[in-house]
Amino acid sequence: MNDQRWNKIRNHMDEHKLDCLLITEPKHVGYLTGFFSNPHERFLGLAVPKNDEPFLVVPALDLEAAKAVSSVLTIRTHSDTDDAYALLQGWLGGGKGIVGIEKDHLSVSRFERLNAVLGASSYADVGGVLTALRAAKTPEEIEKLRRAARLIEAVLTEGLKHVRVGATEIEIVAELEYQMKKLGAEGPSFDTMVLTGDKTALPHGNPGNRKIQSGDMLMFDMGVYLDGYASDITRTFAVGERPNDESVKIYETVLAANLAAIAQIRPGVTLASVDAAAREVITEAGYGPYFMHRLGHGLGMDVHEYPSVHGANEELITEGLCFTVEPGVYVAGECGVRIEDDIIVTADGVDVLTTFPKELAVIGG
Amino acid sequence: MNDQRWNKIRNHMDEHKLDCLLITEPKHVGYLTGFFSNPHERFLGLAVPKNDEPFLVVPALDLEAAKAVSSVLTIRTHSDTDDAYALLQGWLGGGKGIVGIEKDHLSVSRFERLNAVLGASSYADVGGVLTALRAAKTPEEIEKLRRAARLIEAVLTEGLKHVRVGATEIEIVAELEYQMKKLGAEGPSFDTMVLTGDKTALPHGNPGNRKIQSGDMLMFDMGVYLDGYASDITRTFAVGERPNDESVKIYETVLAANLAAIAQIRPGVTLASVDAAAREVITEAGYGPYFMHRLGHGLGMDVHEYPSVHGANEELITEGLCFTVEPGVYVAGECGVRIEDDIIVTADGVDVLTTFPKELAVIGG
Repeated sequence: MNDQRWNKIRNHMDEHKLDCLLITEPKHVGYLTGFFSNPHERFLGLAVPKNDEPFLVVPALDLEAAKAVSSVLTIRTHSDTDDAYALLQGWLGGGKGIVGIEKDHLSVSRFERLNAVLGASSYADVGGVLTALRAAKTPEEIEKLRRAARLIEAVLTEGLKHVRVGATEIEIVAELEYQMKKLGAEGPSFDTMVLTGDKTALPHGNPGNRKIQSGDMLMFDMGVYLDGYASDITRTFAVGERPNDESVKIYETVLAANLAAIAQIRPGVTLASVDAAAREVITEAGYGPYFMHRLGHGLGMDVHEYPSVHGANEELITEGLCFTVEPGVYVAGECGVRIEDDIIVTADGVDVLTTFPKELAVIGG
Repeated sequence: MNDQRWNKIRNHMDEHKLDCLLITEPKHVGYLTGFFSNPHERFLGLAVPKNDEPFLVVPALDLEAAKAVSSVLTIRTHSDTDDAYALLQGWLGGGKGIVGIEKDHLSVSRFERLNAVLGASSYADVGGVLTALRAAKTPEEIEKLRRAARLIEAVLTEGLKHVRVGATEIEIVAELEYQMKKLGAEGPSFDTMVLTGDKTALPHGNPGNRKIQSGDMLMFDMGVYLDGYASDITRTFAVGERPNDESVKIYETVLAANLAAIAQIRPGVTLASVDAAAREVITEAGYGPYFMHRLGHGLGMDVHEYPSVHGANEELITEGLCFTVEPGVYVAGECGVRIEDDIIVTADGVDVLTTFPKELAVIGG
């Protein structure tokens, strides 16, 4: 059991006078107990009564799997013919007072069934406390994030060998996802993106049947889940020949912005200031209006999670935070360049998890 | 606009005295308007006031995309700085009475925001009416399901060329998913499964690094999404040589069960009777206890949807229903065999969408 996490949970319950907590988001159940699973439509929950030991509720068929790993030792089960909610009522007893639930996760249907048996006086949203806990990555989590980053970089290295004039974007995507599987990823952490030529100027374009041409810019944006944690990297290359001067200027600007943002990261500064560091470089080069998205997003058990790294986020950076740094410049009719790294905030600065070279490189001649 | 769908929606509203319907499940918004999208955390909804024209609410950035395809012509937008719920209140006016929502889809958080602005007298769950509508596939939907089935069969044909002694399960999975992309699928409709040897006896095993051996049975269970519709096929093969007599007997039993179930399908019979037709064949052959799952599941915009085809489902089969027929026999220490087809119920029988041969075949010598 991770004592720090549990202390924070118990403190939150005390502060907000919660009589019981009922965690139902499968990743959060796993985060607090070590038992990660996908219960599909079956009921999975972690109950934390105020003055009692927590207990895990799992479908009967998952009992052995849960026993093998759960740090919460009391495990109760329900079969497919049981009413899991009625059982829960018995296990929790009467007089529930204020019950903490995850309101973003729980559907109205499930809530109505829960409310019918619990009859709490009120329900408080505890999604925020889980978000805050998850934001502070432990050394073990950082290692998992680092391995997910290493894996996607190995995929990129292999993928580059298949870039050649005449190949289509979608063929390269297929090759990259093939490598992800071969190298042991659980899967892509989002739709793998390969864009070429003019299409690099679309921040959210879709790979298609466009054939790679010499002189194109080529952008990879991709990631994997490995052992429950995500990576997310973007690199942009020139194909076949050195690109024109405008493209080179755009590239060098984005790279300088990426480095300036990373240099700004340390505990105690605001997330807004990191976004600003990148945006300043890009604005000074005359491309301000062409960087039309936020600098980055949190990364962890989800590929997009708390915090959002943008110019209005005055929250202070703290040790253990993991997020992406991904400035981009997109000039329609010319090209787009984005360079994205995954970083962890350390005690006095930053640890960049992605290590793939960032200097402008010509590939696939 | 699909008039039949809309008539049923309006009839349901009349019958249940609903004053307004608010559809928020993105696939259902698409199903009723033709505008399919993923709004991520932004608000997307279709409002149907009792005595007024329906209107679509989309994020401002999706307006052009929605205009291009939506059969609902009134499209209202909200920007990222708007409060979509407050706008909705204005658009709907006061005095909401009974509002129909999808309780399985809507989170408690979203419901609370909605309730704060709508203040309806009560909320009725309309998930069931959408489920019922979706169950009756139109000719256009059947064509999409047929194309999704054809695509996965083309993937299987290509994949078989890569089966050889010494290859691992996960390498075959990677090859299959590569083919899915190349052939234009949106993606796998679930985790592609390739199991070999003893592992075929696990109904939900995971592909791993086991190497294919001569004499193995090899099971493929996979599908794709194409144009929003799913396919799902299972075929089992022998590798390298004719398998032992027990394995052959298991195979022939499962094939006979698959054919018996398909022969039973027509409008007016129960889903239970289709499950029973397969189960009888397997029980007579002495493998009753080794067929421990339901016969199949509905298929459409989701790879698992209504109806569930099992022995206790006394619902009557109707024209246009699409579901899988997938009997299996799993004998630990020996082998497992499952043969799965996707079928559409026609006016007087059945149309089998999957056409890949089902006779026992030896592959990958």
